[in-house]
Amino acid sequence: MKVFPDWIAVDWGSTHVRAVALGDDGVLARADAATTIGQGADHHEAALLSLVEDWLAPRERVLILACGMVGARHGWVEVPYRPVPAALDFATGLVRAPARDPRIDLRIVPGLSQDKPGDVMRGEETQIAGFLAGHPDFDGVICLPGTHSKWARVSAAEVVGFRTAMTGELFALLSTQSVLRHGVAPEGEAPEAFDEAVAQALSRPERLATDLFAIRADGLLHGMSPATARGRLSGLLIGAELAAMRPFWLGQRVVIIGAGQVSAAYARALAAQGVTAECLRGDDMALAGLAMLRARMRGVAP
Amino acid sequence: MKVFPDWIAVDWGSTHVRAVALGDDGVLARADAATTIGQGADHHEAALLSLVEDWLAPRERVLILACGMVGARHGWVEVPYRPVPAALDFATGLVRAPARDPRIDLRIVPGLSQDKPGDVMRGEETQIAGFLAGHPDFDGVICLPGTHSKWARVSAAEVVGFRTAMTGELFALLSTQSVLRHGVAPEGEAPEAFDEAVAQALSRPERLATDLFAIRADGLLHGMSPATARGRLSGLLIGAELAAMRPFWLGQRVVIIGAGQVSAAYARALAAQGVTAECLRGDDMALAGLAMLRARMRGVAP
Repeated sequence: MKVFPDWIAVDWGSTHVRAVALGDDGVLARADAATTIGQGADHHEAALLSLVEDWLAPRERVLILACGMVGARHGWVEVPYRPVPAALDFATGLVRAPARDPRIDLRIVPGLSQDKPGDVMRGEETQIAGFLAGHPDFDGVICLPGTHSKWARVSAAEVVGFRTAMTGELFALLSTQSVLRHGVAPEGEAPEAFDEAVAQALSRPERLATDLFAIRADGLLHGMSPATARGRLSGLLIGAELAAMRPFWLGQRVVIIGAGQVSAAYARALAAQGVTAECLRGDDMALAGLAMLRARMRGVAP
Repeated sequence: MKVFPDWIAVDWGSTHVRAVALGDDGVLARADAATTIGQGADHHEAALLSLVEDWLAPRERVLILACGMVGARHGWVEVPYRPVPAALDFATGLVRAPARDPRIDLRIVPGLSQDKPGDVMRGEETQIAGFLAGHPDFDGVICLPGTHSKWARVSAAEVVGFRTAMTGELFALLSTQSVLRHGVAPEGEAPEAFDEAVAQALSRPERLATDLFAIRADGLLHGMSPATARGRLSGLLIGAELAAMRPFWLGQRVVIIGAGQVSAAYARALAAQGVTAECLRGDDMALAGLAMLRARMRGVAP
């Protein structure tokens, strides 16, 4: 759609890029595409232009603010991490990406790093910033489930520390490429199997290595349905993540930022542990974070 | 090589088939090939014939004894599991595979199953039988590391119980297909990183979910070498397996049956826990198991 935005917000992950055209009255248009990170600046510029071409005016340069893996070592341009503890006024760490097209002025948000235990994030810091823009006094824990789930401690408008679990990636690999693929449904839910597996992983986390294979065995021996198998695999992996992250959520206020279905699974698992979690959409929070940044760049309060 | 065996032993796993031609004086010839399980009986027959064609005489039928995934649901013919506790006189459970070629008389060894906790094995039972043929009074634990590592309790010439961990498959998926692939060397050893990771996984098994991603983060932030990353990944996964299998090995006599390099890694990890393990080759044990079976079929003591 032909629109002339004031600026463009881009949330660019490892496999997907989302762009939003913004004007004085908010969102003018949205576009998104599957893409990959890691084939050089020209590749990234072509991918971006194909997405936002309709929003560019001749001889005018538009500001584009991007977060996510586009700033990784193999991204468009490497943006140095900001070490935690870090306030989320990342306007200072922005890096301008080299571009051939004079109509784009792309600046990429820095991710966060933690020295010990070693950890990194790119993109989630912007979602957290978006949440904090609406909840400036928040003190607690933010869970961002996904391919690489993040748990962050936030206090006094700073990210104090965080950890990552590869839960989403493990689920994808195990359910589509391991021996478990023969018996795990491609979609669907099995709440009871999920709940049981979460509890099992939390109470006996040291058994994960054998519990995973038992999904295959129970399919072969006891005719466990593919939907049940999917629920159990999801529950074991989320339960293992909760076991690793217990110091984050135990007795804490937790906010979950992510996609609807996966956030609901985490909220359900936490609820069984007596933790009530509020769920917010990841794309909304990323946009809110970039908008907050845009406002800071203008010297206007968010 | 043209030979005329008395019989043929076949060890047929998910991705590889090994055949041995045997006569009165033992091994006459060996052949092996990469193959896949699961494309129907004709596919399996063609794969076998291409391997043993040189060993077949016209108008003579030769006995072929096979173990492994060739007897799985998607194998040549499904061979029902034998439930544990099971003595390893599996001559009774053999299933003849349908074949077009009249020169082959193929019989497949049944695997073992365990009802609760649900578990299955195909192929390892023959390796255990081969070991027991040489150690009839063995009482202890046998570890068979691999794609799907098995731990079996053996007493009075029976497999009493067993469990499986997907350690080898997880290592392959994580090191070649996950985000960790960017920083994990395709080969090489890093004994110190391995030892440290084994200890870490054993002492804090609930942290596995975060410890895995830290491999990536420490590569990005602290320049951890790909060899160190490989050692740490291997150590974390083997350590997680040992954590799950602790009731098997703690204070027990352990025998490891498998490929040389991976067996050595398990022996090293166990040694750090004060457990001395003897290592034997998996292919030798499979052949010994099939030879024991062949002797039983003839009514001759092994």
